[in-house]
Amino acid sequence: MTNSTIGHEVAQVNARAKVLGKAVYAGDMFLPGMLHAKILRSPYPHARIKAIDVSAASRLHGVRAVLTGEDAPRTRWGILHKERTILAQGCVRFAGEEVAAVVAEDEETARDALDLIQVSYEELPPLLDPQQALAEDGPIVHPGRTNIAHEIQFERGDVDAGFHRAALVHEQTYTTHAQYPGYMEPNACVAAMDAEGRLTVWAPTHSIFLMRGRLAAALELPASRVRVVQTMTGGAFGQKMLEDDTCLVAALLALKTGAPVRLVNSRLEDFLACPTSVPERITMKMGMRADGMIIAKEVRILADCGAYCGLSNQILHVSAMRSDNMHANGNVRVDAKAVYTHTPPHGAFRGFGGTQAQFALNSHIDEMAAMLGLDPVEVHKKNAIPPGSTSLHGWEILTNGTPQCLDQCADAIGWRDKRQNGKQDGPFKRGVGIAAAIHVSGNRTMGNWDGSTINLRLNEDGRVQVFSGECDMGQGATTVIAQIVAHELDLPLSHVQVVQPDTDSSAYAIGAIGSRVTIVAGNAAIRAGRALREKVLGQAARVLGVAQDQLELRDSLVFSRTDPDINIDLATLSRASIWREDGEVLQASATWDPKTVMHDDLYGNVAPAYSFAAQAVEVEVDTETGRVRILDSFISDDCGKALNPLTVHGQTNGAAVQAMGWALYEEVKLEHGRISNVDFADYTMPSIDAIPMLRNGLVETLDPNGPYGAKGASETAIQPGAGAIANAVFHATGVRIRDLPITPEKILSALAAMKEESHA
Amino acid sequence: MTNSTIGHEVAQVNARAKVLGKAVYAGDMFLPGMLHAKILRSPYPHARIKAIDVSAASRLHGVRAVLTGEDAPRTRWGILHKERTILAQGCVRFAGEEVAAVVAEDEETARDALDLIQVSYEELPPLLDPQQALAEDGPIVHPGRTNIAHEIQFERGDVDAGFHRAALVHEQTYTTHAQYPGYMEPNACVAAMDAEGRLTVWAPTHSIFLMRGRLAAALELPASRVRVVQTMTGGAFGQKMLEDDTCLVAALLALKTGAPVRLVNSRLEDFLACPTSVPERITMKMGMRADGMIIAKEVRILADCGAYCGLSNQILHVSAMRSDNMHANGNVRVDAKAVYTHTPPHGAFRGFGGTQAQFALNSHIDEMAAMLGLDPVEVHKKNAIPPGSTSLHGWEILTNGTPQCLDQCADAIGWRDKRQNGKQDGPFKRGVGIAAAIHVSGNRTMGNWDGSTINLRLNEDGRVQVFSGECDMGQGATTVIAQIVAHELDLPLSHVQVVQPDTDSSAYAIGAIGSRVTIVAGNAAIRAGRALREKVLGQAARVLGVAQDQLELRDSLVFSRTDPDINIDLATLSRASIWREDGEVLQASATWDPKTVMHDDLYGNVAPAYSFAAQAVEVEVDTETGRVRILDSFISDDCGKALNPLTVHGQTNGAAVQAMGWALYEEVKLEHGRISNVDFADYTMPSIDAIPMLRNGLVETLDPNGPYGAKGASETAIQPGAGAIANAVFHATGVRIRDLPITPEKILSALAAMKEESHA
Repeated sequence: MTNSTIGHEVAQVNARAKVLGKAVYAGDMFLPGMLHAKILRSPYPHARIKAIDVSAASRLHGVRAVLTGEDAPRTRWGILHKERTILAQGCVRFAGEEVAAVVAEDEETARDALDLIQVSYEELPPLLDPQQALAEDGPIVHPGRTNIAHEIQFERGDVDAGFHRAALVHEQTYTTHAQYPGYMEPNACVAAMDAEGRLTVWAPTHSIFLMRGRLAAALELPASRVRVVQTMTGGAFGQKMLEDDTCLVAALLALKTGAPVRLVNSRLEDFLACPTSVPERITMKMGMRADGMIIAKEVRILADCGAYCGLSNQILHVSAMRSDNMHANGNVRVDAKAVYTHTPPHGAFRGFGGTQAQFALNSHIDEMAAMLGLDPVEVHKKNAIPPGSTSLHGWEILTNGTPQCLDQCADAIGWRDKRQNGKQDGPFKRGVGIAAAIHVSGNRTMGNWDGSTINLRLNEDGRVQVFSGECDMGQGATTVIAQIVAHELDLPLSHVQVVQPDTDSSAYAIGAIGSRVTIVAGNAAIRAGRALREKVLGQAARVLGVAQDQLELRDSLVFSRTDPDINIDLATLSRASIWREDGEVLQASATWDPKTVMHDDLYGNVAPAYSFAAQAVEVEVDTETGRVRILDSFISDDCGKALNPLTVHGQTNGAAVQAMGWALYEEVKLEHGRISNVDFADYTMPSIDAIPMLRNGLVETLDPNGPYGAKGASETAIQPGAGAIANAVFHATGVRIRDLPITPEKILSALAAMKEESHA
Repeated sequence: MTNSTIGHEVAQVNARAKVLGKAVYAGDMFLPGMLHAKILRSPYPHARIKAIDVSAASRLHGVRAVLTGEDAPRTRWGILHKERTILAQGCVRFAGEEVAAVVAEDEETARDALDLIQVSYEELPPLLDPQQALAEDGPIVHPGRTNIAHEIQFERGDVDAGFHRAALVHEQTYTTHAQYPGYMEPNACVAAMDAEGRLTVWAPTHSIFLMRGRLAAALELPASRVRVVQTMTGGAFGQKMLEDDTCLVAALLALKTGAPVRLVNSRLEDFLACPTSVPERITMKMGMRADGMIIAKEVRILADCGAYCGLSNQILHVSAMRSDNMHANGNVRVDAKAVYTHTPPHGAFRGFGGTQAQFALNSHIDEMAAMLGLDPVEVHKKNAIPPGSTSLHGWEILTNGTPQCLDQCADAIGWRDKRQNGKQDGPFKRGVGIAAAIHVSGNRTMGNWDGSTINLRLNEDGRVQVFSGECDMGQGATTVIAQIVAHELDLPLSHVQVVQPDTDSSAYAIGAIGSRVTIVAGNAAIRAGRALREKVLGQAARVLGVAQDQLELRDSLVFSRTDPDINIDLATLSRASIWREDGEVLQASATWDPKTVMHDDLYGNVAPAYSFAAQAVEVEVDTETGRVRILDSFISDDCGKALNPLTVHGQTNGAAVQAMGWALYEEVKLEHGRISNVDFADYTMPSIDAIPMLRNGLVETLDPNGPYGAKGASETAIQPGAGAIANAVFHATGVRIRDLPITPEKILSALAAMKEESHA
C-alpha cells in the first residue's frame, strides 16, 4: 500500500474549487430564459385569508406569474405529518408562512410585485406559548387535531425504587431556545422543466433521494419525473432537506411557467423560511448514590414544533432517549411532548435534539456532583456505559471512549489544578466546566434500512469514478469516500473522482443525516473497492496468464508476486478488459446495510456504532457586566478512527463555535410571534474575537463495525458545549444558569439573587 | 404482456421535445461567463506558415484569447494515424485547415478578430489529384511517409480460373464523389472547465466514450479528467465523432482560458470543417456464367483521404470487401489504396464505404445482365448467399432476405411490366432499375470488442431508468432501448426513461456506429431487463411469501398465478426492496458482446448479423435537357424484425433521399483545392419537389442473434439508391453513367455520344 491517505490529514478534494471561488452554488447558476422568484409571507402568526388580489402584481411589466394557494396542489406535504401546503390555503399558521409567490424576469421586479399583492386577512388569536398548547380551551393550530404533534412515554427498570435507594434526589428544569443554522449559503434552488417534461431541481441538500421523494409527493409527480442535483453546498446543519418550503415554491413555479426558476433566499428570507432548532423545556429528576452512580432518572420534556412539525417528532425521540444510553443506569421514566404553536416551525439542527438534552443532563450531573462533593469528571466516568454492554434502550455499545475523552479534556484544560484553585482577578472570576455526550453513527428508525450503495467504474486511464448519492455539505463526505476507494485500490487520491450527487446517476442513498455517511457509505465503499479489486485481479490474471492469487495490486500496477517483471498497469488493464471477447468496462457495486435492528419504535440497536465526546472549557466571568469570555476549550472526540483528522478537527471546531454561539449569544427572538432578529446584525453569531484558540483531541477506539474502525464524527462535538460552559460559569461564580442562552443579564440577575440570598 | 410496443409503430420518445422546440442542442446552451469562438482557416491547400501575428486581434476589445499552433499540444491526433494537430503547426495541408482560433465575449467580435490575424504563408505546390498521389516525384502530403494512407490486397479462391470459366468477363471503372452529410444541425460544442479542473464537453456525437478518449488523447489529459455529454443531436450521418477539429478547438480554448467556450459552426464553416464522404475510383472486372452466376471478381480501388485520413482506412476496407459477402462467389481479388491529397479530409458517412462499392457493383451486374440478356432481379437472386452459409471473408450469414426484398421491390415498382414495356412520351423516357445491398449490424474490427452495457434502476414509483452510453442522433436508439426494457418488464413505455448519454453516468458503450445499437444494446437491454425482472420477482417472493416461480409480472403488478389477489405493485415493491434489512435499490447491469471473431484483419465473422436491402426506382429522363426525375421508389429492408416500424421507415426514407441527392444532385466541388460550394444555395440537396412519394417495405427474417430477431436498420437502405437510379437511367435511355453524380450534362453528353456511335 503506497498511496493510502487513511488516517492522514488531507485537504478536502473540493477545497480548491471553493477557495478559488470556482465552486458553483445554486445561486450562481444561470439557465437560458431563467426567471426569478420571490415569496410573499404572512405578517400574522394566525389569520384567515379572506381574499388575495394578485391583479396589480400580475400586470407589472416583467412579471410572469403570481401564484397563491389556489394554484398549489391540494396535497399536503410534510416529512412525518402531511399538514402543510406549498402556499397557504385558507389560513396562515405562522408569521412568515408562504402566502403567494411571484416569478419575474429579474429579482427586483419580483420583489416589487410582492408589494402589489393585496391580501385581506382576518386576524385570529394565536397560540404562542407551548405551555398553553395543552390548555383545554386555547386556540388549536391544526383544526380537527389536538396541539400535541407527538408524545413519548416509557419507563424502563424501576424508577421509583431507584429514587428510594438514592442518597440524593435532585430535580430541576432547564430551558433551551431556538438556534438558526447560520450557514454561509442561505437556502437556494433552481428548478426547471426539461424537454421531456421532467422537473430538475438543483439545490444544496443533505439528501438528493429523500428530497426527490418529498418534491414528488408534494407536487403530485411520480418520483421518476423529478431529478435532484446537489449543487455545491455552503453548510447545511440539518436545514437543507426540505423541511422548508423554498424548493417547493421554486418547483411549483417552474411547473406552472415551464421556465427555469431561480429562488435564492436573502438572509432575512432565510430566517423566515427555514426551521430553527427545537426549543425544549426539560425537567430532570435524578437519583444518585453517594458515590455518584446514577440509579434513577425521570425526564419531562415539552418541545415546541412551531406551526408545522417537520422532523420535530424525531428530534423529540432523541431528546427523550439518546442520552440515556451513555450511562449504565437502567431506571428511566420519560414523558415527552412536542406541541404545535402559531410560531415559525422548528426542526433538524446539528445534534438533532441531543444538544438540548445534553445541556440539561450535563448541568444536572454537575449540580449533583457539587451537592455530593464529587468531581464531575469522576461522576461521568463512573456512570459511562462499558464497552460490550447493551444499554437500557437496546443499544449495543461496542466501543466507548468516554473515560479517555474525559481524561484528555481534563488534562488539557488543567482540570485538577483549576478546580482546586479558582483564579480570581477582582471582578473577573474564572472557572472550568466539563460535559460529555453521545451520538449515533447511522440510524435505523427511518424505515428499517440504513444502507448505502456505492457504484465504481474503472476508466480507461486507470482512474476510478465513484457514484454515491451521499451528500457533502462541507463535512468531507466526498473526501472520505474517495480516500476509502483509493485505499482499497491503492490509487493516488487524485485518481478517484466522486461524481456530483444526482438522482439521475448516483447510486441510491439516504444522504448525510444521523452522522451516517462515514460508517455506512464507508463500509459500502470498502466492499465496492474490494469487489472492483477482485475484478481487476481477475482480468490481470487472464491477461498476464498468472494465477489470480499470485497477483498484487500496488500503486496502479498489478504484478506477479513471484516475478514483478510480469505486470500490467491499471490503464492498460482497463482497456484490455473492455476490448476483448465478452469485454466490458470494469464496474462494481456494493451495498452495506448495518446489522442493526429496531424491535419497536423505542427499543433496539439503532446504529452500528456510537460516537462519544467530552469537552472542557475555561471561562472568565466579568461579575460587573455579566459578560462570559471563553478562555480555553478542548474537545475530545471518540470517532472510532479519524480517517481524515483534518476534517474531524474541522467538524469539531465548527461544532465548538456553534455550541458557544447557542450557549452565549444566538437566539431566535419572537415578538408577538414574529421573528424580530432576522439578520446578522441583530442575530449575533460569535465572531472571531469571542472564540478562544480551539483545541481538540482524538480517542480512537477502533469500532469493529466502522470502516477501519471509524464512527461518525460530525454531530457529537456540538452537544457538550452548552453544559460545559454553564458548569464553568457555575464554577467561576457559583451561579447556575438553567435557561439558555447565558446572557450577561441572566448572570447579573443571578449574582444579585445569590447575594441577596447570602445576605438573607 | 400488456404493454409491449415491440413491432408497433410508436413515436420516438424524444419527438415531443423536438417538435415543441424544447430540445436543447449544443448551440442552445448558455453557461455563465461563456465565451464564443471562431476559427481562422487556411485559404491555401498547401503552404508553409512563415509567421502569424495575432497582436492586433488580441488587442480588439472583447477578445479574450487568440491561439495558434504554438499554443496547441505537440501531440498529434487522429483516429487511426496520429497526424494532425489541433491548430496547424508549420504548414497547412488543405484549404480550410484550422490555423488560429479566437475566443471573445461575443461571436461578432470573434469573427471580427479573425480579420486582424496576419498570417504569412509561403504557398507550396499542392497535390490535388489522387491519381497523382502515387507518382514518384510529386508532392508528399506527410513528409517522411508515402502518400498511401492505407492499402489492402488479397485474393480468395482462384480468380483467374474463374475468369477462364466465365461466359462473360466485363470490366469497367466507376467513380464516386464526396457528399456532405447535410444534417440540420451543424457541428457545435460547448466546452468548460469545472471547479475541479475537469473538462466537460457538451456536443452532439455518435459516441460519448470514443469522443472522450479522443479528446483526452489530443489534449494530453487523462480520460477521467474529461467528461462528454451528448446534447440533443440534429442528425450526424457519421460526421459527429471527432474526425473533425471543432470540439478540439473549443476544448483547447476552454483549457487555456478557464472559461466556458461555445463554438457553433455556421453552415459555411461546417462545410470547411467536417469531412465529407470518401471519393473512390472503382475498377471492377467480373466473370459471369451464362446463367448470371458470378464466378470471379477483381476490384481495384483508389480512394482519396484528403489531407488527413480519419476513418478513410476503415472505409476502404468496407468498400473493398463488404459487398463480396452478398454473394456465393468465392473468387475475389482486390487491390485497394487510400491516398493523401492536399484536399479537405474525407471520412465516415452513412453507409461507410458500402455506398461507393454498391454503386459500382450494382451498375456492373446490371450491365452484365443486359449483355447476357438476363433479368437483373434474377441475377441478384441467383447470386445471393444463402442463409446458413459462411461467406468468402468468413461472415456467417444466418439470415438473408435479399430474394424476398428483390421480389417485394419488383412487385411494388411493377418491374415485369415496366421492363417489358418501357414507356416513352416524346423526349421523356421512362425506365426502372434495381439494386441490392448488404450491411453489418455491429462490427468487431475496433479492438475485439463490440459489446454494450446497460444499467437499469427501479425507482420508488415503479418506473425504470436506463443508463446507456449509446447515442441517439435521431435514428431512434433511445426509443428502441426504452421499448425493449419496457417489453421485458411489461411497463408502459412512458415508465422507462433513458438517461441522456454522459460519460459521468452512462454505462460504457462504443456508440452509434456500424448499425450496432439495436442489436448489441438491444441484447444487453434484454439481459438487463430480465436480470431486473428476476430481482423484482425475488423481492416479491420475499414480501408476498410466495415461491418465485409462482409469480408473474404484468402491467406493473407482481401477482401469484394461483391467487391473483396476492399481489404487489412495482412502486410498493421498489420501496419495500430498499426499506428493509440489507435493502438496496433494485438495479441490474448486463453486457452483451456478440460471439463474433476476427481471425485476422481481413477474415472473420465481423458482426452478429447482416442486414440486406433492395431498392427499385422508376425514373423519367428528359432527353432534351438531361434532367432525371424519380417517379417512384420502393426500398425493401431485411432488418430482421422492425422493433419500431415507424423509425425503420423513417431511416429508410431518409436514406432514400440522401442516396438520391448523392446520385443526382449533391457534390462537394473543389476549385484549386478549395471547396467552392459551401452553402445550400450552391450545394444542392434534393428538396421536396425532387423526391417522389417514398415507399418501402419490410422483410422480417428474424435473425437468431437479434433482439426479437432484429438486425440493424439504418445504413443498408442508403446503399442501393445510386445503382438503382443509374440502372433505371440506362433502362430508360440506353446510356450508362459510371461517373457520379448523374448530372443532366453527363446524360446529354452520353446521349450525344451514343447517337454519334449509332450513326457511325
